[in-house]
Amino acid sequence: MIVLHHCVSARSFRPLWMLEELGAVYELRMLPFPPRVLARAYLGINPLGTVPLLVDGETRMTESAAMCQYLAERCDPEGTTGLAVRRDEPAYGMWLNWLHHGEATLTFPQTIVLRYGRFEPVERRLPQAADDYAKWFIARLRGIEAALTGNDWLCAGRFTAADVSVGYALLLASHLDLVHRFPPNVATYWGRLQQRDAFGRAMAAQAAAATGQGVSVEPSPGQG
Amino acid sequence: MIVLHHCVSARSFRPLWMLEELGAVYELRMLPFPPRVLARAYLGINPLGTVPLLVDGETRMTESAAMCQYLAERCDPEGTTGLAVRRDEPAYGMWLNWLHHGEATLTFPQTIVLRYGRFEPVERRLPQAADDYAKWFIARLRGIEAALTGNDWLCAGRFTAADVSVGYALLLASHLDLVHRFPPNVATYWGRLQQRDAFGRAMAAQAAAATGQGVSVEPSPGQG
Repeated sequence: MIVLHHCVSARSFRPLWMLEELGAVYELRMLPFPPRVLARAYLGINPLGTVPLLVDGETRMTESAAMCQYLAERCDPEGTTGLAVRRDEPAYGMWLNWLHHGEATLTFPQTIVLRYGRFEPVERRLPQAADDYAKWFIARLRGIEAALTGNDWLCAGRFTAADVSVGYALLLASHLDLVHRFPPNVATYWGRLQQRDAFGRAMAAQAAAATGQGVSVEPSPGQG
Repeated sequence: MIVLHHCVSARSFRPLWMLEELGAVYELRMLPFPPRVLARAYLGINPLGTVPLLVDGETRMTESAAMCQYLAERCDPEGTTGLAVRRDEPAYGMWLNWLHHGEATLTFPQTIVLRYGRFEPVERRLPQAADDYAKWFIARLRGIEAALTGNDWLCAGRFTAADVSVGYALLLASHLDLVHRFPPNVATYWGRLQQRDAFGRAMAAQAAAATGQGVSVEPSPGQG
């Protein structure tokens, strides 16, 4: 059984969404945010104290974008869903690129905005850093804006795990009120992503699990 | 022919090191740092203005950690070098995790240290942010410290592309004078990485190319 440790709306939403796209059987363990403060026992399971943590037998993973590739291949080895791009497809390199891009280029800058714009005590906030990295993020959307010209999805002519990786960055941006600064193709794409059945099921699954496990359903974006 | 656009010691050192590990034929195009200011024509090739850019036929990639996986599989489809971990190996998920971890968790925080500690004009520097993310980086080394207990390399019992991804983060830390804060296993590992023949060849290749192409050999760490 695949076990996913998750905080509402955190990066762990990526593997949750993937599991729903794949129709996989999984256990969702909700944590209060931030777990390293409010759920100290979690440090015994993941010494970094971050979410997500995905446990699948002997495999333990902490990087949400890596999980997108792993789950696509692990839960669908025949490639029926098309969520993974195969090595012999021309889009393979681009696919790997977008998987990483969603996190390394499009999510991390937003964690700076969150930290110095919202999470830090008032006396430690740094409006300049929050503003610098909001701009940085918006400028980097140019890459997906171009890729989406004439395309519904980022690569390979279909919805793939790369769209989940990048899609989470847009979900985080919606929590940061950055959606009105999306360029046009990105704005349309963000609407398209939210209409996916699996996106809706993942949203419902985290709300139900949070309620059932006594965890706040308030978003705790970006942590991990 | 694989073409790699590179600034000395920038993230593009990852694919350069991989190409040397693989014994691949490639063309190295050096850029002054920062290219979006000093080599405006580069924006016509890569509108984001970042390095690396790797071009291999129709494949264009900008994420250095993704390139580590791509090149391992592209240049060594039979897996002779062992640089890629195959999907049927138990360490596959961990390997993907370390590939991402090297960039998303261990490199990006250092770019905050660089930006607000060194690159910004004095009046825009933010010593608090530089200090916060130096600490953040050092704390995250706990994960590789644990993985290296009793192991020379991160996963699969051998040197892989994941060691290149994480190894670059340690190279960047050496430019930031953070090496003296490495925990013991990480310090030993960093010494081991630098002794790889391909690491030395990559260092020599960038110095020779920079000199030959009239670009400063001063390190321009972290850009891209």
